Amino acid sequence: MGYRVALVGATGAVGSEFIRTLEERRFPVGEIHFFASERSAGKKLRFNGDEVTVKELTPDAFKGTQIAFFATESPISREWAPLAAKAGAVVCDDSSAFRMDPSVPLVIAEVNPEDIKWHNGIISNPNCAIIGLLVAINPLHKVNPVKRIIVSTYQSVSGWGQTANEELDQQVKQHVSGEKITYKIFPHQIAFNVLPEIDSAMENGYTKEEWKMAEETHKILHDPGIRFTATCARVPVFVGHSEAATLEFTRPMSPKEAREILSRAPGVVVMDNLPAHVYPDALTATGRDEVFVGRIREDTSNPGGLVIWLVSDNTRKGSAVNTIQIAEEMIKRGWLKAAR
Amino acid sequence: MGYRVALVGATGAVGSEFIRTLEERRFPVGEIHFFASERSAGKKLRFNGDEVTVKELTPDAFKGTQIAFFATESPISREWAPLAAKAGAVVCDDSSAFRMDPSVPLVIAEVNPEDIKWHNGIISNPNCAIIGLLVAINPLHKVNPVKRIIVSTYQSVSGWGQTANEELDQQVKQHVSGEKITYKIFPHQIAFNVLPEIDSAMENGYTKEEWKMAEETHKILHDPGIRFTATCARVPVFVGHSEAATLEFTRPMSPKEAREILSRAPGVVVMDNLPAHVYPDALTATGRDEVFVGRIREDTSNPGGLVIWLVSDNTRKGSAVNTIQIAEEMIKRGWLKAAR
Repeated sequence: MGYRVALVGATGAVGSEFIRTLEERRFPVGEIHFFASERSAGKKLRFNGDEVTVKELTPDAFKGTQIAFFATESPISREWAPLAAKAGAVVCDDSSAFRMDPSVPLVIAEVNPEDIKWHNGIISNPNCAIIGLLVAINPLHKVNPVKRIIVSTYQSVSGWGQTANEELDQQVKQHVSGEKITYKIFPHQIAFNVLPEIDSAMENGYTKEEWKMAEETHKILHDPGIRFTATCARVPVFVGHSEAATLEFTRPMSPKEAREILSRAPGVVVMDNLPAHVYPDALTATGRDEVFVGRIREDTSNPGGLVIWLVSDNTRKGSAVNTIQIAEEMIKRGWLKAAR
Repeated sequence: MGYRVALVGATGAVGSEFIRTLEERRFPVGEIHFFASERSAGKKLRFNGDEVTVKELTPDAFKGTQIAFFATESPISREWAPLAAKAGAVVCDDSSAFRMDPSVPLVIAEVNPEDIKWHNGIISNPNCAIIGLLVAINPLHKVNPVKRIIVSTYQSVSGWGQTANEELDQQVKQHVSGEKITYKIFPHQIAFNVLPEIDSAMENGYTKEEWKMAEETHKILHDPGIRFTATCARVPVFVGHSEAATLEFTRPMSPKEAREILSRAPGVVVMDNLPAHVYPDALTATGRDEVFVGRIREDTSNPGGLVIWLVSDNTRKGSAVNTIQIAEEMIKRGWLKAAR
């Protein structure tokens, strides 16, 4: 008993995270179909011990599919997700293609699962940096609406993709062997450096990554009035996005109250004992599905506000995990046709 | 014609930065005396081509000294700086020992040189992260007083000291050779990680580093009313502290106006052309004495406010350079007895 599932982009780095996550979470798969580009078709991958042959995407690929996970870049999602939806599948898309489309829900499983209900065949997974932030903030926001968010990110290279991990790895090897450090993915050296540039430049001086964080926050929390600004920076870390967030609430919120709320919140782990050096870091979060929160303290520039530190694994919760959780929520809430 | 200068802590990593900087800036040295602990006494160092023997610190070491630079940790400064001042020297101290002492001026050369005037024998060099921040903010503050500062830092390991550079270097070597990564200076692995902990924990949830940034800002800008909060994080970078700062002003300040003011400001270099990937990074700032500012944009969470990105070399401007500039300001303003 399980669903007929398709995974598009199965052979990529994000695709393997989807495969691993579907297995780990024991997603109720009846039948699975792996799709990729022509180049990868014919390749064999393992799923729950069975060998599955990767197929090329074709217009009738999604016939009979109930859930289609897209572990793809935007252009592929933009082309194929509507076809999958048309064929009757519910698409859970990890790309940024449909995030701001008003007809597509943008969902974090712990934050706004009820938005899944109004989907028209496609549901979008948010930006990895915003997933971590809102999983941590939403439990507080529900009790005491947040009015302003100022966030600085420390984002790992895997947010760019697997080749960026290879570039960082190559640069540290060049450093160790005393060679000249070369680069091609990032516009400057990333090893032993910090680059305040993620995604392309906008006319207003923000990067698209920073802008997306604001827009997606407004959409997910259903409140375009939340004042928001972000600085997104790339750090020489393989996996794990860290974020420093300054929060203003409607009413005063004490660190103690926030700690209590967050320690009961789904998908959140509080690690907050600074004298004992206990706080989240990228290595703590790596390989984990939760969002880790620490350094919870009063904002000395705005008593009643808070400053927090949070970290999540961008390759898991920020990507495959949340996308798959969206489908799990649909199943749990009976919003998907029964498994066959 | 030059001053009789003493350098305490001459044999350490910070000491060598002082030696190099005194040479590079052609500081008017008539006679130089190098001091260190008993262990290093007798060691020979070069200064402007001459060999100088390192002497042990003794109570009469500072007899006749006009300027005493302390490239030392707080306990050494606390013990010996008052003796040097008593002997008639003006002490320029790089440690944190006297920074918040109300009888000691805390000076950034470009920001509050007039505070040098009321010294009582000791002048203190601020925290390296605050020097970069205030060199960048003060020119704006003078035109349009800043009311609130929210800053997140991306601080290099050299802020801890030379042995931290060795620890990072060792960890990347261990990564490359596939060995287990070990650590002893930082409480967790720093390579490929971000640690939101610099200096010790305070009861209010802040670290001392974060707290010092607020206190020193109030002292240097003579305005305890400036609302301030900081998150200080250590990143796997050898040299260069990067900072993301959100600024609220008395009146609206446009990015254009800020860019104009900063491009004329002493000690500041504006690098701000995001579409061309032009912004400061740690490697740009390394080995340079200026503070680099970029990513100047409107704070979308507070129109009329700004968000900026700045980077400075913590081992230079954050340390030896500013400490030596304090002495240069004294000389320039005729506040020091004539050179002999």
